[in-house]
Amino acid sequence: MLDGPFEKLVKQISVLPGLGGRSARRIALHLLTDKTGAMKTLAATLSEASASVKTCSICNTLDISDPCKICRDPARSEEVICVVAGVADLWAIERTGAFRGSYHVLGGLLSALDGIGPDDLSIAGLMQRLSGGQTKEVILALSATVDGQSTAHVLSDHITQAAPEIKISRLAHGVPVGGELDYLDDGTISTALKSRAAV
Amino acid sequence: MLDGPFEKLVKQISVLPGLGGRSARRIALHLLTDKTGAMKTLAATLSEASASVKTCSICNTLDISDPCKICRDPARSEEVICVVAGVADLWAIERTGAFRGSYHVLGGLLSALDGIGPDDLSIAGLMQRLSGGQTKEVILALSATVDGQSTAHVLSDHITQAAPEIKISRLAHGVPVGGELDYLDDGTISTALKSRAAV
Repeated sequence: MLDGPFEKLVKQISVLPGLGGRSARRIALHLLTDKTGAMKTLAATLSEASASVKTCSICNTLDISDPCKICRDPARSEEVICVVAGVADLWAIERTGAFRGSYHVLGGLLSALDGIGPDDLSIAGLMQRLSGGQTKEVILALSATVDGQSTAHVLSDHITQAAPEIKISRLAHGVPVGGELDYLDDGTISTALKSRAAV
Repeated sequence: MLDGPFEKLVKQISVLPGLGGRSARRIALHLLTDKTGAMKTLAATLSEASASVKTCSICNTLDISDPCKICRDPARSEEVICVVAGVADLWAIERTGAFRGSYHVLGGLLSALDGIGPDDLSIAGLMQRLSGGQTKEVILALSATVDGQSTAHVLSDHITQAAPEIKISRLAHGVPVGGELDYLDDGTISTALKSRAAV
């Protein structure tokens, strides 16, 4: 029944992350039957975003300008650089509003399984930024997974060798805010115990 | 952090059925970072589908032509008309390949709660098709919900009054193929018992 442009549309939607055939059909039908013209608007926004997306030559994030908005912001110094795996992580930290330094997007994590080595990440770009001498602290805001932690280890080795005066820190491990102890894994609980803080 | 076209893109994706803010950001980032140009292709497909979508003047389905491919197919007679609530249901039945008659899409179900009355559905269109005299059977392939069943009731009243010679049938109720009895609700089990078939 699905013909020509409809079938093409469903196929292209179904390969997006988190979606399958059924949800793709639902979305396609919603767009096709929407009276407010959501489909044309979405098509235009996609073209616009696709045409304006740029990779920041300093921090490697996506933005509509190069250097990106954060790297151009004079209020955000290079004194503290927060290293993240991907743009999604940068967006997540920016949403909290808790960080006012600058970022460096690695573009992934080291992974022996997926064949991602140091040359696939923008480690050289980070080291070059650090050689400027402005940076006092690097926060390794990487996932608490095996890949994340081994990447953090490699990075901190690199940084200590090249610039031993730079402080290296990582995100605190512990109980998530709002998390119930009963539902947490043993590793998190024992880490939270070891890193307990005075009240 | 999300600026201009990016924020617009995430917002427009997040209102699609089944998606929220987090999945919309994931999809937007996937599209933005995709090297194969999936974004431009999707934008083009959306424009193309939006420009070519038509509502069939006979059966009320969506297609790229009017009358639709099924209504134009000489192999598919109007002897048996399958009445469905929406285009998604028509697609679902077409995927099975088990039905070779024609369809009529109501465009919804009667619902007192949602304020959908008989005039909001294409019941008049169906009655007009039936008045042609070609139709011998109408299959009411509506959901086994309160709204679906009350719509089926109203439709069968209408049809019996206008053309008492037309046979009216509904989909069989029972245990879904592959369904485990243990996980089925009581209503389905008792219906399946009542409509049990000889082996």
